[in-house]
Amino acid sequence: MLPEKHIPALILIDLQIAIDDPVWGPRNNPDAEDKLRHLLDAWRDAGASVYHVRHDSLEPQSPYRPGQPGNAFKPEAAPVAGEPIVPKTTNSAFIGTDLEERLRRSGHNSVVMAGVLTSNSLEMSVRHGGNLGFDVRVVSDASWDVDTTDLDGRIWPAADVHALSLARINGEYARVISTAQALEFVR
Amino acid sequence: MLPEKHIPALILIDLQIAIDDPVWGPRNNPDAEDKLRHLLDAWRDAGASVYHVRHDSLEPQSPYRPGQPGNAFKPEAAPVAGEPIVPKTTNSAFIGTDLEERLRRSGHNSVVMAGVLTSNSLEMSVRHGGNLGFDVRVVSDASWDVDTTDLDGRIWPAADVHALSLARINGEYARVISTAQALEFVR
Repeated sequence: MLPEKHIPALILIDLQIAIDDPVWGPRNNPDAEDKLRHLLDAWRDAGASVYHVRHDSLEPQSPYRPGQPGNAFKPEAAPVAGEPIVPKTTNSAFIGTDLEERLRRSGHNSVVMAGVLTSNSLEMSVRHGGNLGFDVRVVSDASWDVDTTDLDGRIWPAADVHALSLARINGEYARVISTAQALEFVR
Repeated sequence: MLPEKHIPALILIDLQIAIDDPVWGPRNNPDAEDKLRHLLDAWRDAGASVYHVRHDSLEPQSPYRPGQPGNAFKPEAAPVAGEPIVPKTTNSAFIGTDLEERLRRSGHNSVVMAGVLTSNSLEMSVRHGGNLGFDVRVVSDASWDVDTTDLDGRIWPAADVHALSLARINGEYARVISTAQALEFVR
């Protein structure tokens, strides 16, 4: 196994109860929570760094708003003692947070990111991390998206939104990998 | 007409000769350059602010690299004397640049953005501007995208990539408008 500081930090985005609210519509990757559990178990067993980015929405109606039950972490991805929580109020995990500073201070140039929604806060955080110079991997099967209606009224299935989001990220901002590939970092 | 400082700043992204390189593949919105000319004429006639974001790629093979003919602005969108050029080396117009500081200093909380590619540097700059708290409009018909192959080998036509990019931006990071709607700001 690589020394801890050479294992990329695992950064989980917005994995809170709120994302299960029916308001977001149908999703893809129903097995993503299982994959997330595998990732967390492996990172914890290796003593490697895990960051839990939590969305504290400023929107009065959002299920992600602090004080709402949806603001709590999903049980499959909840932090354990000692794992830092990074609260944010925008989509990017790097705006209004100390995530960049924490990663630089701990010598983490490489990160593995997963979470929700692929094309929204995950994609924004991945793009931002890549543009800040971090070597970013995104775990495709530990993330998911939802059906999306475009400005002409066309409905895009969640799996298509997810696929196109990853296609645009890959090679330009990050590298897209599977859970199986991510687990190799800690083996 | 609104006083100059109440007209949103027009921010054009990466409109350089390099984007016409065949390496990027087929595009949509062939009339976008005409729309850009209308926008520039109107902003200039109103004495309103225009910023030209220029991509100075660090990739040795990129047609956007400084010193390559592709680094020059496209004639339809070239700056005139007095219009600031904002050089950048990543996708976001807000990373490693003074754009945020310039906008705040000049009291521009609202911006109108257009350029290329919709789902790449334009989208990243729009997302980043929105997350920084700017009121961002994106001009759909003065921007374009290119055919994109996803990780399963499926080819997405440029118009679809453009449409889905705007669908994900709209309401979350920015408001998507047409050139005709943008021109109302300076009428």
